[in-house]
Amino acid sequence: MTSHTHIHPLDDALLLQPTAPGVFTGRTTEPYWNMVGPYGGVTAATLLQGVLQHRGRLGDPLSLTVNYAGAVTEGAFTVRAQAVRTNRSTQHWWVTLSQADAEGVEQVATTATVITAVRRGTWSSTETPMPTVQKPADYPAIDGLFPVQWVRRYEMRPIAGPLPAQWDGAEHDSLTRLWVRDTPARALDFAALAGISDVFFPRIWRRRATRVPIGTVSMTVYFHAGAELLAHTGGGYLLAQARAQEFRNGFFDQTAQLWNEAGEMLVTTQQIVYYKE
Amino acid sequence: MTSHTHIHPLDDALLLQPTAPGVFTGRTTEPYWNMVGPYGGVTAATLLQGVLQHRGRLGDPLSLTVNYAGAVTEGAFTVRAQAVRTNRSTQHWWVTLSQADAEGVEQVATTATVITAVRRGTWSSTETPMPTVQKPADYPAIDGLFPVQWVRRYEMRPIAGPLPAQWDGAEHDSLTRLWVRDTPARALDFAALAGISDVFFPRIWRRRATRVPIGTVSMTVYFHAGAELLAHTGGGYLLAQARAQEFRNGFFDQTAQLWNEAGEMLVTTQQIVYYKE
Repeated sequence: MTSHTHIHPLDDALLLQPTAPGVFTGRTTEPYWNMVGPYGGVTAATLLQGVLQHRGRLGDPLSLTVNYAGAVTEGAFTVRAQAVRTNRSTQHWWVTLSQADAEGVEQVATTATVITAVRRGTWSSTETPMPTVQKPADYPAIDGLFPVQWVRRYEMRPIAGPLPAQWDGAEHDSLTRLWVRDTPARALDFAALAGISDVFFPRIWRRRATRVPIGTVSMTVYFHAGAELLAHTGGGYLLAQARAQEFRNGFFDQTAQLWNEAGEMLVTTQQIVYYKE
Repeated sequence: MTSHTHIHPLDDALLLQPTAPGVFTGRTTEPYWNMVGPYGGVTAATLLQGVLQHRGRLGDPLSLTVNYAGAVTEGAFTVRAQAVRTNRSTQHWWVTLSQADAEGVEQVATTATVITAVRRGTWSSTETPMPTVQKPADYPAIDGLFPVQWVRRYEMRPIAGPLPAQWDGAEHDSLTRLWVRDTPARALDFAALAGISDVFFPRIWRRRATRVPIGTVSMTVYFHAGAELLAHTGGGYLLAQARAQEFRNGFFDQTAQLWNEAGEMLVTTQQIVYYKE
């Protein structure tokens, strides 16, 4: 893993070198390392980045589904982004991240579909107002939610539903709320939003106060924010809220929302997550 | 459009003829026709069916994301299902539905990713109990929600948040609840569940009591039900609940849940939907 220290760690992690139309090479970076692979949010952002850097792109991200098909290992990878269908104002993408295995055979580790769209001003309204909470400064920033690299790339100020202090098996609801932003602070863009969409610790840890092994299988992000809303959100905090709806036979879902400090909805997102035991 | 009258209309719509490994031909059917193309739910079920019929399939559906890339026109189509990655207990699929255009050139109309998984019994729990409502028989079945074919393939018993009786622009919340099942009644399976996941009329019609043009762009379905739960659900009613979280500049989301009569969660699902004006 190599890192450039003169650029923001997220921009460093998202560096993709084009090698052919729609084909890019990148590599994992140490600052976003999780336990046995890169943080899922930075992998999501990387696949989206393949579309964002594609010369044939039409419009901005509307929807992203990332499927974590296999382990991403330390080192180089290839991102391939292909426009499967281009309409007048929407475009449908198929994206893969692959790596050579021990025998040198290319294996797909992550797949994604992305929809980009040209958005127009219309009647707009929310039906999920931001919860009433105090300002970010009123909640202390925590230092290292758990001992992996990527959590240090986010300034987290828990509001409700923190990581259990005692792993005592006492059941709670799975709701978590926090203020969060990239650290160092960084102007928000679509890739960063995709990254933050995966920022929550596993709902089952909260629900059961038991630290079972987990792994996200698939994550979908709906971008309600356009470029203008991202621009005026800038480097500010996001209110992030997540909860599970169902835990059943090895898989639970998570539904989450991200608002900016002004209370504007930026993202709604969901995951299906594997758990053991 | 040809139909076989001796089998259930859903089974008829899902008839896929294998022509090569992972390649199937099918055709649209009149009973599931919407305004200008097939009902999105039956298209979702058709793409899932391509995986279900694949000889190399491992496990049962866990997650399905369908991207409605372009219009599906009346007549024949080709479904291609490819296992991109097979693990010990999960498998990741890329699926397309394509049709020849006016010049005879194959165009992708719909794409999907599917994850299948071998599920094992574990600690399980819900965090979204079924709302307290009366029995299905206590709510009259409505006859034709709106004048298109596919709505007659579902027995719908609205509970709350019906289609507005007056298109008067009076704003409501977007929540809708109904009892629903296939008609004729049919034992529930994964394809039928995918179909019912799209059964809701557009949330913006409820929210605004204004009938603006809409089109689903992407739908994701998480299957919490395994084969055993489907088997004991059988041909019973499902409690279906949907609401929007955000309407912004031409796109709104929908988040929904399906329970069986016993109150067991079968599916959580979400959509991002285009709207005009």
